[in-house]
Amino acid sequence: MTRAFTAAAAQLGPIARNESRASVIARMVALIERAAAADCRFVVFPEMALTTFFPRWLIEDAEEVASFFEAEMPGPETRPLFEAARTHGIGFYLGYCERAAEGEGADHLGFNTSILVDSSGVVVGKYRKVHLPGNAVYDPALKLQHLEPWYFIDGDLGFPVFEMLGGRLGMLLCNDRRWPEAWRMLGLQGAELVCLGYNSPAQLPDNPAQNALRKMHHLLPMQSAAYQNGTWIIASAKAGPEEGCDMMGHSCVIAPSGELVALSAGLGDELLPYSIDLDATAEYKRFFDFKTYRRPECYGLIAAPHK
Amino acid sequence: MTRAFTAAAAQLGPIARNESRASVIARMVALIERAAAADCRFVVFPEMALTTFFPRWLIEDAEEVASFFEAEMPGPETRPLFEAARTHGIGFYLGYCERAAEGEGADHLGFNTSILVDSSGVVVGKYRKVHLPGNAVYDPALKLQHLEPWYFIDGDLGFPVFEMLGGRLGMLLCNDRRWPEAWRMLGLQGAELVCLGYNSPAQLPDNPAQNALRKMHHLLPMQSAAYQNGTWIIASAKAGPEEGCDMMGHSCVIAPSGELVALSAGLGDELLPYSIDLDATAEYKRFFDFKTYRRPECYGLIAAPHK
Repeated sequence: MTRAFTAAAAQLGPIARNESRASVIARMVALIERAAAADCRFVVFPEMALTTFFPRWLIEDAEEVASFFEAEMPGPETRPLFEAARTHGIGFYLGYCERAAEGEGADHLGFNTSILVDSSGVVVGKYRKVHLPGNAVYDPALKLQHLEPWYFIDGDLGFPVFEMLGGRLGMLLCNDRRWPEAWRMLGLQGAELVCLGYNSPAQLPDNPAQNALRKMHHLLPMQSAAYQNGTWIIASAKAGPEEGCDMMGHSCVIAPSGELVALSAGLGDELLPYSIDLDATAEYKRFFDFKTYRRPECYGLIAAPHK
Repeated sequence: MTRAFTAAAAQLGPIARNESRASVIARMVALIERAAAADCRFVVFPEMALTTFFPRWLIEDAEEVASFFEAEMPGPETRPLFEAARTHGIGFYLGYCERAAEGEGADHLGFNTSILVDSSGVVVGKYRKVHLPGNAVYDPALKLQHLEPWYFIDGDLGFPVFEMLGGRLGMLLCNDRRWPEAWRMLGLQGAELVCLGYNSPAQLPDNPAQNALRKMHHLLPMQSAAYQNGTWIIASAKAGPEEGCDMMGHSCVIAPSGELVALSAGLGDELLPYSIDLDATAEYKRFFDFKTYRRPECYGLIAAPHK
């Protein structure tokens, strides 16, 4: 059995604050149909793919905040996406805001979550974002808020991997990509393809000197992690001018060599298909041969509690 | 007090198997003099800077093997380097093979070691290579041997950092640069400048498909590590055609942004000076703010013993 197949980043352009789920799901179904036409077996949607990136605001209206979270997955509004994917035999990764169960999470409404759905529409795995960036409280000094720790509970599922597509898949979300520990946790469990959705501003109005480095800081840690862990990466953006904030595009596919092998040029709804061979991971996993060459007895500080 | 100064990679061209210490030291002293003329306060010499890269051979003559190791540092042959550096007020990083003490290390003669020497000629820190690449025994099927685990004891000093040059310095050696744990251990201790010497073949005769990727695999993990840990990196090669093996050059300076800011173009003895400001690390250390954003309780596997 070959382990080669076509997969795609399914980048989304901007989503308006008041855009309906039905509208977003229709855009995603259109991407699934394009993926089917491109013979894809798997697509990666962005982080928080169903809504605008609302943590850029401190929203006081509890009902509006709640409207960005999903109480069930699939639910009545998201089911058409699952059905379209099943119809075409396409699995997918989806980022969304997951409403916590009653009593879970104290003041926070839920998690920044992603799931893996197989080609029959079954949810085979869930991940909850571990590295929430930004501020836990509103900072009036900032031009651009980033209030993920205000809205979300810290991910509590670790870094699980799942058998799918004949291989081993892992999930990360946005800021996780900057943390080598996240990739290594997946690499140590044999991940061969890591899916990552993101919402990243293309400019930082509070630190414009960083603007010219944004693309590099997006790609560099992923290319390095792909090589160091011998894994494919598919990263999918929420891109373009969304509610006054320019979101970075640059959805991409990265090979286990660390090479950037596909990069989206646009900022809208866009499919970026690539022919992936999971067996291409073996050469790098052999080269790094964790059991022979890693020295975990020297890495204690990495897993030690904060002092 | 400013924390800006000029530092340099002091790359060395090939060293012959039978080249004397006196000859090598004379070359290094010449680089120190060039560094003084360039107003450098610090230079980084390569790994195993005093000899040829002998682990490419299985050497049966115990006396020859012993000749590649230093029983004391400085010793009679290396003292002129220390004196030249002190004369010019230049500190340095030096990689060399360190003869183990009696009873230390069983069958192995010693360590693949580096030291930091301050501008008064005092050794302020020592590191012993943690990640020894290659094979523990001779493999007749290989065109190019890499027998570091045959010759060396696993480094047993962890990843220490040292106060020097008004900042915090760390050391790594060659293959360590491919392991994110090594960088993170230094980053967690606040390293602001990491020195790394290396001996890396430019081609892999046993896997020529990798040849075109060698430069990328050299730079990518370092650029990513500089960014993720907010540290400067100075990496210094033993370069050029050494005893039938083409050694990679590409000595470099990498900024805490991850940007490659200086790269040597040659393969000989070469000085690569750059004006470093240790305060430039602060922005990235603030951005990643380890205490706020790292989740060590999720990283257990990284420091767990091999299963």
